Amino acid sequence: MTERLVVIGGDAAGMSAASQARKRRGPEDLEIVAFERGNFTSYSACGIPYYLGDVVEDFDDLIVRSPEKFRDKQQIDARVRHEVVAIDLDARSVTVRNLASKSESIEGFDHLVVATGGKPVRPPLDGVEARGIFGVQTLDDAVAIEKFLQNEKPKHAVVIGGGYIGLEMAEAFQLRGLDVALVERSPQPMVTLDPDIGELVAEAMRGLGVHLYSSEPVTGFEAKDGRVAGVVTDARTLHADIVVLGLSTRPNVELARTAGIPIGESGGVKVDQRLQTEIEGVWSAGDCAEKINRVSGKPVAIALGTHANKEGRIAGINIGGGYATFPGVLGTATSKVCGYEVARTGLNSEEARDAGFEFTTATSESTTRAGYFPGTSPITTKLVVEQRSGRLLGAQIFGKEGAAKRIDGLAMALWNEMTVDAIVNVDLSYAPPFAPVWDPVLIAARKAWDKVQLELADLR
Amino acid sequence: MTERLVVIGGDAAGMSAASQARKRRGPEDLEIVAFERGNFTSYSACGIPYYLGDVVEDFDDLIVRSPEKFRDKQQIDARVRHEVVAIDLDARSVTVRNLASKSESIEGFDHLVVATGGKPVRPPLDGVEARGIFGVQTLDDAVAIEKFLQNEKPKHAVVIGGGYIGLEMAEAFQLRGLDVALVERSPQPMVTLDPDIGELVAEAMRGLGVHLYSSEPVTGFEAKDGRVAGVVTDARTLHADIVVLGLSTRPNVELARTAGIPIGESGGVKVDQRLQTEIEGVWSAGDCAEKINRVSGKPVAIALGTHANKEGRIAGINIGGGYATFPGVLGTATSKVCGYEVARTGLNSEEARDAGFEFTTATSESTTRAGYFPGTSPITTKLVVEQRSGRLLGAQIFGKEGAAKRIDGLAMALWNEMTVDAIVNVDLSYAPPFAPVWDPVLIAARKAWDKVQLELADLR
Repeated sequence: MTERLVVIGGDAAGMSAASQARKRRGPEDLEIVAFERGNFTSYSACGIPYYLGDVVEDFDDLIVRSPEKFRDKQQIDARVRHEVVAIDLDARSVTVRNLASKSESIEGFDHLVVATGGKPVRPPLDGVEARGIFGVQTLDDAVAIEKFLQNEKPKHAVVIGGGYIGLEMAEAFQLRGLDVALVERSPQPMVTLDPDIGELVAEAMRGLGVHLYSSEPVTGFEAKDGRVAGVVTDARTLHADIVVLGLSTRPNVELARTAGIPIGESGGVKVDQRLQTEIEGVWSAGDCAEKINRVSGKPVAIALGTHANKEGRIAGINIGGGYATFPGVLGTATSKVCGYEVARTGLNSEEARDAGFEFTTATSESTTRAGYFPGTSPITTKLVVEQRSGRLLGAQIFGKEGAAKRIDGLAMALWNEMTVDAIVNVDLSYAPPFAPVWDPVLIAARKAWDKVQLELADLR
Repeated sequence: MTERLVVIGGDAAGMSAASQARKRRGPEDLEIVAFERGNFTSYSACGIPYYLGDVVEDFDDLIVRSPEKFRDKQQIDARVRHEVVAIDLDARSVTVRNLASKSESIEGFDHLVVATGGKPVRPPLDGVEARGIFGVQTLDDAVAIEKFLQNEKPKHAVVIGGGYIGLEMAEAFQLRGLDVALVERSPQPMVTLDPDIGELVAEAMRGLGVHLYSSEPVTGFEAKDGRVAGVVTDARTLHADIVVLGLSTRPNVELARTAGIPIGESGGVKVDQRLQTEIEGVWSAGDCAEKINRVSGKPVAIALGTHANKEGRIAGINIGGGYATFPGVLGTATSKVCGYEVARTGLNSEEARDAGFEFTTATSESTTRAGYFPGTSPITTKLVVEQRSGRLLGAQIFGKEGAAKRIDGLAMALWNEMTVDAIVNVDLSYAPPFAPVWDPVLIAARKAWDKVQLELADLR
């Protein structure tokens, strides 16, 4: 008898799950239907700032796979503009609203994947619903912003929130010739970095001409004829023709919670090793699903496309009759801002403290290529390292071309719970166009190990 | 009482050992003398092709630290143009020849570091001593080649041997406007790579206009008035005004062997975990010292600056009264040739076979950035993977900008004996300017794991 898989959410996690399930089970064995309330399936949300900044010219490039392709190539019925509004676990069905026709239907399932993604944190402030204030989570947001830029020709942009997406949007607006202000309530942008590394990012932003207002919580918005005119902080009012909320997201779990699917302490849907929820045959993956941080051991909610793709794949393998488990995350992330590259993995100092670690940090300076090689540039590497053991807990990198991807070697080391002492001897690659003979990663580990040993002597 | 450390060889391994020993023991406790038969200490031999190709303009940039600096900053007495011609283990002394004055002296030691480096394999062919035929191992070689290029204005260059240094020298000559032929006796250049990946390198060379003659052993040289005029292979005679022997090196161990210091089966000086030879107080590091390949478990002789620096550091820590062990190598190496990047780590197919592994290989294609991002380019990744277990045994990468350094993540995985199944889930970094959402490393691991599983099904 043919079973039926229903997927809620048509982006990375949901469609990866659908694809993997299809790979293992044919259409006669498993019918697959995916509901997406937006207009697009499987797209690169991370590409949006580059599209809006005219770095990537073709909008269609951001779409990895269209509903037509899912249907034709994989016999997956992906329905856009269809919103799932309720899950009935007893009846094993979902209620789906067709956003075009406004009609509703009941759709049964044998397997269900909850991939409802993240929900942007919209501050409950006066005027936040004014025209010209945008989130930037979905391709539909990108379409709306592009339309506004073309039709309304805004001159002054204010980006609220100095996370990856906020910084990337600030740069995109700069590239489009707007005057850009970035408002961040923390003392520096990029709160996933330590303050000293975040300050390097702040300097880079200022260097590009972005007006940076840190330690300034937004208190409200000014509007004129229903269109945004200003952003009010606790220190000033910034003129604004367009505002982007580059704020963090929370797991979008209302649907799951209402249905009775257990939610974890991180706020994400609780899942087991195979990414099944506590309800048999109901799975969850992506930004809405809880993950374990491998370093802290804590359940966390992190919204990253890399995790969503991996989790979707794991859920899909299991639904398809295979066996796979998801081993957790490090929170590795990277971004290119204002000609600089920034990357992080594992725990920053605050996170290490919260997790109960005793730790030390070591910041080292090196170069991306041999010091004498054309195009070489400075790279700053900060390691967070457990005291006594010297175990790596986290890493942050700031530099220019060739800097960011070095975080991957450190992520691999972190994944394997290596000590910095052990990392020093790892046989990493070297040639003058790519690295000094001691790669910056090894130099960072050497410096951190020296520091651990010194402090160890003090502790005795 | 002041002890005395004598170092034989003033490049990476020897001077790293000297520096680390000095860091731990002051001049009143340990006198340090280093003898180098060439004219330079601590230099970047890997930078030579870039200097000769006019990519790096200033010769002095290749010198990391001069004898004057060693003396002034570290109280290390580094004597260039001093060749150690004998070691007397009973008397704990070395015989040193001053190459300028031709005088000899006897120098006692308490600790001795044998860092005599590699010895270029010079084919025993007619005419190999003709003027215009150069090795390219030391800075003195670089000086000689540059002088010849400037004074004799050669037009036709022949490079013999298609290893890293051979390919880099071929490119350097191209950049200097010479007509370049590369002769390699194997079917393709880069024998440390599998033939199919080596062929990609061969195509890149041809694309640059290098005349590539593979499967052609050199049988002799033609000379005119004592100056090289041609390279004779078993198929043709190539016109040559300058010839570079980009051939492999062997550990330079005659001095140690003659003295009675045991040599290992790889041909390198035998050392223990702390890099001490079988003689108390006599240490060895760098190209002349035997290493253990962590994947095959075999003793090997590999000449790489990264190893030399690491081993020198380990020996120096131990001589300095600290404790450190050298955990072996993977043979990670990389090169930039003709606008392409190539890298490898661990075992290639032939090495895996020799080590007794049952294995499979998987080659995957991806891109260095998100597929839609400007500047993205193809990257080919080949993994060598143990059958059944799926354990990674080796990796090879070929691509353009951003390709090579990805070998480091794989080297870290290999170091930790990860399976490709485990690698797939590692939290590597992603942003459109740096990678597709599934990094090429993860895509390679996915493909390899699929293949292992398929073959596993066949094996059952």
